[in-house]
Amino acid sequence: MNESIKKIAVLTSGGDAPGMNAAIRAVVRSCAYHNIECVGVYRGYEGLIDGDFITLDARSVKNIINRGGTFLKSARSENFRTVAGRQKAFNNLKSHGINALVTIGGDGTFTGAIVFNDEHNFPIVGVPGTIDNDINGTDFTIGYDTALNTVVEAIDKIRDTANSHNRLFLVEVMGRDAGDIALNAGIGAGAEEILIPEQDMGRDRLLASLKRSKKSGKSSSIVVVAEGDQIGKNILGLADYIRENLEEYEVKVTVLGHIQRGGSPSCFDRVLASRMGVGAVDALLEGNRNVMIGTVHSKIVQVPFVESLKGENNIDLDLIRVADITSV
Amino acid sequence: MNESIKKIAVLTSGGDAPGMNAAIRAVVRSCAYHNIECVGVYRGYEGLIDGDFITLDARSVKNIINRGGTFLKSARSENFRTVAGRQKAFNNLKSHGINALVTIGGDGTFTGAIVFNDEHNFPIVGVPGTIDNDINGTDFTIGYDTALNTVVEAIDKIRDTANSHNRLFLVEVMGRDAGDIALNAGIGAGAEEILIPEQDMGRDRLLASLKRSKKSGKSSSIVVVAEGDQIGKNILGLADYIRENLEEYEVKVTVLGHIQRGGSPSCFDRVLASRMGVGAVDALLEGNRNVMIGTVHSKIVQVPFVESLKGENNIDLDLIRVADITSV
Amino acid sequence: MNESIKKIAVLTSGGDAPGMNAAIRAVVRSCAYHNIECVGVYRGYEGLIDGDFITLDARSVKNIINRGGTFLKSARSENFRTVAGRQKAFNNLKSHGINALVTIGGDGTFTGAIVFNDEHNFPIVGVPGTIDNDINGTDFTIGYDTALNTVVEAIDKIRDTANSHNRLFLVEVMGRDAGDIALNAGIGAGAEEILIPEQDMGRDRLLASLKRSKKSGKSSSIVVVAEGDQIGKNILGLADYIRENLEEYEVKVTVLGHIQRGGSPSCFDRVLASRMGVGAVDALLEGNRNVMIGTVHSKIVQVPFVESLKGENNIDLDLIRVADITSV
Amino acid sequence: MNESIKKIAVLTSGGDAPGMNAAIRAVVRSCAYHNIECVGVYRGYEGLIDGDFITLDARSVKNIINRGGTFLKSARSENFRTVAGRQKAFNNLKSHGINALVTIGGDGTFTGAIVFNDEHNFPIVGVPGTIDNDINGTDFTIGYDTALNTVVEAIDKIRDTANSHNRLFLVEVMGRDAGDIALNAGIGAGAEEILIPEQDMGRDRLLASLKRSKKSGKSSSIVVVAEGDQIGKNILGLADYIRENLEEYEVKVTVLGHIQRGGSPSCFDRVLASRMGVGAVDALLEGNRNVMIGTVHSKIVQVPFVESLKGENNIDLDLIRVADITSV
Repeated sequence: MNESIKKIAVLTSGGDAPGMNAAIRAVVRSCAYHNIECVGVYRGYEGLIDGDFITLDARSVKNIINRGGTFLKSARSENFRTVAGRQKAFNNLKSHGINALVTIGGDGTFTGAIVFNDEHNFPIVGVPGTIDNDINGTDFTIGYDTALNTVVEAIDKIRDTANSHNRLFLVEVMGRDAGDIALNAGIGAGAEEILIPEQDMGRDRLLASLKRSKKSGKSSSIVVVAEGDQIGKNILGLADYIRENLEEYEVKVTVLGHIQRGGSPSCFDRVLASRMGVGAVDALLEGNRNVMIGTVHSKIVQVPFVESLKGENNIDLDLIRVADITSV
Repeated sequence: MNESIKKIAVLTSGGDAPGMNAAIRAVVRSCAYHNIECVGVYRGYEGLIDGDFITLDARSVKNIINRGGTFLKSARSENFRTVAGRQKAFNNLKSHGINALVTIGGDGTFTGAIVFNDEHNFPIVGVPGTIDNDINGTDFTIGYDTALNTVVEAIDKIRDTANSHNRLFLVEVMGRDAGDIALNAGIGAGAEEILIPEQDMGRDRLLASLKRSKKSGKSSSIVVVAEGDQIGKNILGLADYIRENLEEYEVKVTVLGHIQRGGSPSCFDRVLASRMGVGAVDALLEGNRNVMIGTVHSKIVQVPFVESLKGENNIDLDLIRVADITSV
Repeated sequence: MNESIKKIAVLTSGGDAPGMNAAIRAVVRSCAYHNIECVGVYRGYEGLIDGDFITLDARSVKNIINRGGTFLKSARSENFRTVAGRQKAFNNLKSHGINALVTIGGDGTFTGAIVFNDEHNFPIVGVPGTIDNDINGTDFTIGYDTALNTVVEAIDKIRDTANSHNRLFLVEVMGRDAGDIALNAGIGAGAEEILIPEQDMGRDRLLASLKRSKKSGKSSSIVVVAEGDQIGKNILGLADYIRENLEEYEVKVTVLGHIQRGGSPSCFDRVLASRMGVGAVDALLEGNRNVMIGTVHSKIVQVPFVESLKGENNIDLDLIRVADITSV
Repeated sequence: MNESIKKIAVLTSGGDAPGMNAAIRAVVRSCAYHNIECVGVYRGYEGLIDGDFITLDARSVKNIINRGGTFLKSARSENFRTVAGRQKAFNNLKSHGINALVTIGGDGTFTGAIVFNDEHNFPIVGVPGTIDNDINGTDFTIGYDTALNTVVEAIDKIRDTANSHNRLFLVEVMGRDAGDIALNAGIGAGAEEILIPEQDMGRDRLLASLKRSKKSGKSSSIVVVAEGDQIGKNILGLADYIRENLEEYEVKVTVLGHIQRGGSPSCFDRVLASRMGVGAVDALLEGNRNVMIGTVHSKIVQVPFVESLKGENNIDLDLIRVADITSV
């Protein structure tokens, strides 16, 4: 155990995700378990610069495991992109006697951590919290499973009305450049077609497929469109195109939006966040830094920040086949 | 008891609403209870014209009370607006030996029923099924309570992320020309402001109020906007206006859309639909027609169709005061 | 306006109910709106005696409208049944400069309020918060609608497995001596039979009815049993009796228990609680006391405490008929 | 591709689990995709013996992916334990021209499959459907993730009322001899203690731990008890023991029961079921038999039935540590 770690700070940064509170709780409780002091930082790196800190003990985080969002709040910080901002942040950490930092967020969060450590040689461990599941080195990010359930429940509702009226719905879901949410929620919701950035379907193939499915006896259809998909990026234009070329359906568009970022986390996300929060403190106590906690094959692992940022496209081709087969 | 009623048809028409299946079930079971035959008509008045009928017995409607949408499907029928279409519908009813019709839907549905009865002297009783709660003569329409819960649950999720990021969200909800959904769901979701068609707030008062609430210490805000509200009708323009004039907030827009029309009905809507479906068959057996079943002060009543269509604006001023007070 | 009211205390007492937080919030915000100070009392009358107070302003109650339970906590107080205890409570109120009290709870809560006012001439207004809906003078109590939805959602899940296995489930629900939850949730869940305290069915009639429904083609059955029902009070014995006399079914028992007391309140309960909380402060400012805020025909009313406690049996016979008809 | 497979039968057997419908759908759609006929068998092996079959095409399984239970119904079959019963089943399969069988269920289901194949040399592939997650050779069984969410949501509600009243709740959850549900849902629900069959805690250590947590400032407590745990098997006795030895808490017991077996499946379970259903048909077409489809490290695998039945105790010790740490 690294005896020099006596006080750990924790913050959430970037877009919020369900389960962040559970991760904070696990960090705080893990500190209490190891008799280490713990400090919460409000509003991510911005609060680090402003010295917006709060002392947290085991009881401070009661009754938050089931709450969406992050009680420490999150923010994107322009100031942290400056040398002066980071210096200020470092001074605040030092003056509070803080020896290490756990930072919960996505790729932007980890990029900031690398730079900060390079400049100030300060131990940071990351925890991947984002609904997009777009971080390398971990099978799952915190919030992703909850977002999938939110999307599937929303589309279940939409299908009720689609069925009643023989309508075609285009449903836009989040995920930035990753199609994970669209592909998995699309399969889970029984979508007829799924448009993802990793695979260019083209409008004509989409149209041909919708015609085929109509002919096969389907009376309504759901098309799930990832926000990052090329033809989906102009979803209203896509709707018009389908309307012009497929008269059999009444076409409607729903953009699910920010309901996907909130909500009480699923059990999966709560357990994942708990394990990762514990894992983050473990890593610091082992003397590690500049790593993100990941989960690979259900085991907690430590991944160098630089690995986590590699932009690999790892969509599961097997899933695309399953989507094709189960939507016949 | 009206002995001449031996076979009743039931259909759903217009926009679908959660609880329509429960209402169909109650009509079918009530027929079975009274030893009357029951026939389901697919796709509303359109199916009536096409003779798209199905025999329904008590077991046909098992396990549907909890399902959104309508298994008989719904449609808006242009053909039923023509004399020839209605004649065809009448012929189908006669040739199937059907003596009366229960029609579940909204104002357009009842208007069609009036015309049809005028022409063909055919007993029809209506059941108000619409999430908009915009029918006169009944305190509640089927689907409204479920839609309120759907909206409130969605805004709960949005608030998680609004709080985490100090954001202002404009959330557009359904309701056509009625502000009932916006006002009640706005209070239920703890919205800072609620824009409804019945009350013209004006952009400046909205802005002043948002500034005041920001100054009072609120870090995030939800504004619920009814789709029928004048300044809300251009919700993206409204967002731009607020962005230009209220720099303290990051402004986001969410249009909840058709998730509001689906979903498993609430207990309230299931009970309401069950009572109204039973009440519709009761009315026919009492020899009544041209009436809608309503609920007034928790009692089932029969309201002449013409009464139900009167476009009165009955927003509860007391609720507006409650919204103002509880959002300080 | 009653100028002598400058500081109001609010507490929750008795069994907790979803929406109590929304009611507290409305009281606190209403005080802020009227520029009256507000004090929260922890643990009901027990905290009143202990002087366990907290100052509450408009921001103290943010983000609680959607939370089950009561953040002020609740308790049953033996001490408040003593003259000495009530004297201590009165002294605490006086020493804190509190002029009036809003007490949120059920019949025991209001009984305590009457005695306290008799002794100390202290203005108290009550708000009915209980899932049981067993208070006279109000159509609905806070928490009841949420409990109905919780029960219906639970039975929907049970029915999934009942259907898959052709089983008969006895499901016990709360409600103390009132059958409101059982009757309404039973209709909403599509139960085959509903046992309520207000109506003695007898085991033989139950058995005959279950045999009939089995013969009519039903492959599974749900019987909802109110905890206060005579034959339901021994639900395990009832299960054995059915097992011995109805071999066609595998009989299972589920006691839903305390999940019925928790959960995020429905929109209906949030609006009801908001209106009642505002109404309670209104009543005090009008100079009234010794009244409970009720809702009758969707209007807020003030009901003398003594009226609210009258033990009338007001089960809606029309609902029993609807239950009979829709379960054929 | 195995050309001899022209007609596949599918059935569900044993305890039902959410996602079984999604698995059936995937089998049926996969058959349609490969131009293979598909037959559904009602009531598991019992229906196989009775010849209770239904032809299924791609449209037969629309709108079932989101439904709990199994529309093919399930049963435990005593007759299938006899040589005569299995002979009858085989005759039915032959007379219907069925070449292979997909059987969805748990260990009992697979045991039956092994015996049947031994006797009749008939190709069977299994799909693990059970909430208990107690099958070897697969990381997850269908229904387990949904059950975890159901338990966590139920305990969230119970915690609302536990917090309001400073109570200790013992919550019994399912899982047969496996502690997976208890351990994961316990962590997810933030339980103070978790009793699982794989680890004998003993009443005294439980008591000591509860006293410690009370002393540390916790005002309420949730203890999750697996139904298979030794000291938990007599949960009412356990409650009495705690009552006698820990006066600080009011102790309540909730047995969650069969709500854990139902409900709309989570996205995770729907995707898992879809992949496994497709994988089952793939396996048959590859000429394999006597295997169960599993998922290991997110990949679909084929596991010999005999492997799946090995009763290994594979509780994750790391999870127990996470439970200990996050409940301090």
